[in-house]
Amino acid sequence: MVFVGFGFLMTFLQRYGFSALGFNFLLAAFGIQWALLMQGWFHSFKDGHILLGVENLINADFCVASVCVAFGAVLGKVSPVQLLIMTFVQVTLFSVNEFMLLNLLLVKDAGGSMTIHTFGAYFGLTVTWILYRRNLEQSKRRQTSVYHSDLFAMIGTLFLWMYWPSFNSAVSYHGDAQHRAALNTYCSLAASVLAAVAVSSAVHRKGRLDMVHIQNATLAGGVGVGTAAEMMLMPYGALLVGGLCGGLSTLGFEFLTPFLESRLRIQDTCGIHNLHGIPGIVGAIVGAVTAACATPDVLVHSFDFEGLKQNWTAKTQGKFQIFGLLLTLAVALVGGSVMGLILRLPFWGQAADENCFEDSVYWEMEEEKSRAFPEDTTLKPPAPPGPSGPSASPGPSAS
Amino acid sequence: MVFVGFGFLMTFLQRYGFSALGFNFLLAAFGIQWALLMQGWFHSFKDGHILLGVENLINADFCVASVCVAFGAVLGKVSPVQLLIMTFVQVTLFSVNEFMLLNLLLVKDAGGSMTIHTFGAYFGLTVTWILYRRNLEQSKRRQTSVYHSDLFAMIGTLFLWMYWPSFNSAVSYHGDAQHRAALNTYCSLAASVLAAVAVSSAVHRKGRLDMVHIQNATLAGGVGVGTAAEMMLMPYGALLVGGLCGGLSTLGFEFLTPFLESRLRIQDTCGIHNLHGIPGIVGAIVGAVTAACATPDVLVHSFDFEGLKQNWTAKTQGKFQIFGLLLTLAVALVGGSVMGLILRLPFWGQAADENCFEDSVYWEMEEEKSRAFPEDTTLKPPAPPGPSGPSASPGPSAS
Amino acid sequence: MVFVGFGFLMTFLQRYGFSALGFNFLLAAFGIQWALLMQGWFHSFKDGHILLGVENLINADFCVASVCVAFGAVLGKVSPVQLLIMTFVQVTLFSVNEFMLLNLLLVKDAGGSMTIHTFGAYFGLTVTWILYRRNLEQSKRRQTSVYHSDLFAMIGTLFLWMYWPSFNSAVSYHGDAQHRAALNTYCSLAASVLAAVAVSSAVHRKGRLDMVHIQNATLAGGVGVGTAAEMMLMPYGALLVGGLCGGLSTLGFEFLTPFLESRLRIQDTCGIHNLHGIPGIVGAIVGAVTAACATPDVLVHSFDFEGLKQNWTAKTQGKFQIFGLLLTLAVALVGGSVMGLILRLPFWGQAADENCFEDSVYWEMEEEKSRAFPEDTTLKPPAPPGPSGPSASPGPSAS
Repeated sequence: MVFVGFGFLMTFLQRYGFSALGFNFLLAAFGIQWALLMQGWFHSFKDGHILLGVENLINADFCVASVCVAFGAVLGKVSPVQLLIMTFVQVTLFSVNEFMLLNLLLVKDAGGSMTIHTFGAYFGLTVTWILYRRNLEQSKRRQTSVYHSDLFAMIGTLFLWMYWPSFNSAVSYHGDAQHRAALNTYCSLAASVLAAVAVSSAVHRKGRLDMVHIQNATLAGGVGVGTAAEMMLMPYGALLVGGLCGGLSTLGFEFLTPFLESRLRIQDTCGIHNLHGIPGIVGAIVGAVTAACATPDVLVHSFDFEGLKQNWTAKTQGKFQIFGLLLTLAVALVGGSVMGLILRLPFWGQAADENCFEDSVYWEMEEEKSRAFPEDTTLKPPAPPGPSGPSASPGPSAS
Repeated sequence: MVFVGFGFLMTFLQRYGFSALGFNFLLAAFGIQWALLMQGWFHSFKDGHILLGVENLINADFCVASVCVAFGAVLGKVSPVQLLIMTFVQVTLFSVNEFMLLNLLLVKDAGGSMTIHTFGAYFGLTVTWILYRRNLEQSKRRQTSVYHSDLFAMIGTLFLWMYWPSFNSAVSYHGDAQHRAALNTYCSLAASVLAAVAVSSAVHRKGRLDMVHIQNATLAGGVGVGTAAEMMLMPYGALLVGGLCGGLSTLGFEFLTPFLESRLRIQDTCGIHNLHGIPGIVGAIVGAVTAACATPDVLVHSFDFEGLKQNWTAKTQGKFQIFGLLLTLAVALVGGSVMGLILRLPFWGQAADENCFEDSVYWEMEEEKSRAFPEDTTLKPPAPPGPSGPSASPGPSAS
Repeated sequence: MVFVGFGFLMTFLQRYGFSALGFNFLLAAFGIQWALLMQGWFHSFKDGHILLGVENLINADFCVASVCVAFGAVLGKVSPVQLLIMTFVQVTLFSVNEFMLLNLLLVKDAGGSMTIHTFGAYFGLTVTWILYRRNLEQSKRRQTSVYHSDLFAMIGTLFLWMYWPSFNSAVSYHGDAQHRAALNTYCSLAASVLAAVAVSSAVHRKGRLDMVHIQNATLAGGVGVGTAAEMMLMPYGALLVGGLCGGLSTLGFEFLTPFLESRLRIQDTCGIHNLHGIPGIVGAIVGAVTAACATPDVLVHSFDFEGLKQNWTAKTQGKFQIFGLLLTLAVALVGGSVMGLILRLPFWGQAADENCFEDSVYWEMEEEKSRAFPEDTTLKPPAPPGPSGPSASPGPSAS
């Protein structure tokens, strides 16, 4: 039951074929092991042994989720070796940042708006900014989707969507807080879908929808309530946050991503800035506000206002939440810069600008070329004599 | 764990591309919010507040499942605006009907054979009957599947199949009733698969199987035991019901759907009459019979024969189950007629007869035309010299 | 929650289209019912009734998993009738073998390294060895994957991967043993992914990865810890086993499968020898060693060293584990031989050598031919006038 929330890590990026799936799989498997060690050292180290439980696995998953977010920014532009190095460094920084936030600043962040999404997004964006590829437009035609790859991506979206409530509530205290986290996330996600559809239709000249928005912005609501999910956000608060994030995210895809790419030289393959960056910051602020407005009896229950925090007020908690956000951004930007500089070294086997977003650089695909579409032979016309490949086939309207 | 049963709402109709997935997503997100309100007012309204729990979310899911069923009948023929109106009205009627059945008639319907499937199916069928499109055959060639879309649909089928036991047992009493519901559903589904394969092969001239039957009729068993799942149906009863429903459903696809379409002018895109309509009625009758044959000690446990129902006998319960079915049908037919008349108004942005089942009416797909199949270029024969084929297209930089 | 582990049965073989999915579905539905009866007779028969619980369903699933493994070896080469007969026989033998191992030899095998994987693999391999098709290379061109079918297969891989920990821990004692089983499986799977990627890249001349390895060898770690998962394997032990299995499995795909096919005449369609055969044996041996090295207090807890086994030492347990493996192999080989000889009888409707791996033998696909690719019309160039539409295609026999 505990491992169910997992799938999302894997189906996350199904739209870019073998590399997206395979490398994501690879980095997740590697990242989880390293995260188990890192987080074990920080949180459950005792007598020279790391105590391992199911809880640790969930936390390692969370950590790897952050790496997958960052992977979204550099997708198609880095080699597997670069990815493994990036995973190694990011997991380390994630654990340090998480330790500072949760154990030193005593911040609450159950769904990881800050620790996972904001950190992952800005880390990845900084890396991709430093790895800027001047001639990427040579690979531009491969950086799009086709009909079926969009359907594959929707599997990932729906899978993420339906497990997000479990995800946000996984490490909350059992009982009320956990149910509250699930309910809030649920409401926020639903509002996010409506907002994404509405805005997507509104920004299009003819009122049509864009699949990219549906695939991504519908999830922004889940990111946006990450921090506040277990707090007393109330359903209408969750609906509001979800709608806001869904709308902002869609607008981001439409206007901000092209701007970032053309002006700031940030090539954000999956648009993680819109799905994780902005909603993550919104979520952190929502969390801070919710915490600052909490009533005293909520504070003792939800925020452990005992022991160390005996003299805290709700406002102190809110302030520290904001400190947590700023610290996360700082760690992400500095860490991302260093990471990017390391990855710019020329010997990591990265692809040339004109070979980005191309599976055959890293995958064995010769067989397929020679035996292309064996299954589909029944559905396709025999190759006509002459120079015209299947792309020149007359199409179904002749039938 | 609770939210797992969800996926089915979403993967339900993956076979008709962007619109099926996207609109289903949209109506589910909208429907859930409205269902939470409606059902909250009916069932858990206290002191001016709606008490919200995980149970409510499950019930809202069930309600939306009914909308998705109806969506199957009109799929490809209505605009998103029409869908939202339909969702709004159907959720309202569903809640009223459910309230009358469960709280006034004291009927049992754990898996929703009546409230979800029968109601959804006949509501949808009535709507599509009134929205009859005379020239739909102009779009007929798009109303089929291709190899890959059938595989996508199988994802939905398998997902539904494996979560159906959880679905039918979700709102049963914990403990025995819940386990019984899961086991009965399981047996029924398994029998349904065998019956569907057998009948599908039998009705084909050369003994071949039809993918449509496998995708749909295999699930009929789950619908058929919806009402009786938590009752003392016994495994052999479940096997019998499952086999019956699987067989009837396959026969329905083969013979009834064409008949309905040509004679009764009911254009049932997904064949919901076979998957939800007939098995739903069968399920309601099975439930009534099982209830009427229950022994006294079962009655007190499973049917709460205390308080209001102190003087009831098993037969009374059986009779009321049948009343419930008739009431459901009445509400569905009347509600569907009114709904259909409203949706016939010409200003909802519906597509013309020749543009049904077409994604590009509602979705932005220009990019794909010019950048067609970028991923597949590596798998295809090299582009021949000359102007023919997408591989020779000038690329996105021209767009 | 209990039924979640199920999906794996279904998504297991998504890469060979309709037949793989449909027949797998069919045999699973049939096998589960027969397994419920068989296992019921062996394990929970009381007073002329079989007591049925959720536990029984899980065990039936396990049994069917074994059939699915064997199905992988003969995939594309047997008719549905042959499959049903094979399922019937294999479920029977599985139950007998499982009864002998668990109840007579008192062996431990929570994740089924022996009972499920080793048995299934060698049973299937023996059957396919006897069913050797001399002219299979006439169908060879259809025995490969295309870009999208590989992505479908990855859905299955990821689904299996993420549910494997639940699978291996499903029938362990609740509490510590269950958590231990999940954690060990998890570590082993993660190590398996890294090993598979590393070896896959190492054996390729240019360092490229092969999708087949990623799809299969990444799961070998789960098979390898099947027996030992609930024992005191320790995480580093699990990592070691996982890495070993992942590596061996990849090497098997690269070198052993072609060797088996060309020299030993074993045509192993899915390479189950590499994914289930070798790791299954490794898992059984690891289980025996772990058992033989267990400390006394572990023995009483994990191995029930009470009652019958009071005089056993750890070494006795280890010895019996090995006996269990040998017995399993014997049953698989003998049973598979008999099964193969029965299936060689010429009247089961098997396809000719040149029609293997072909859906249209068993599935109705005419519609698709004439209406080919209706969805894709928006993505394709407009049809030129001329008689050469897909509907005019002569069908697969000409290709």
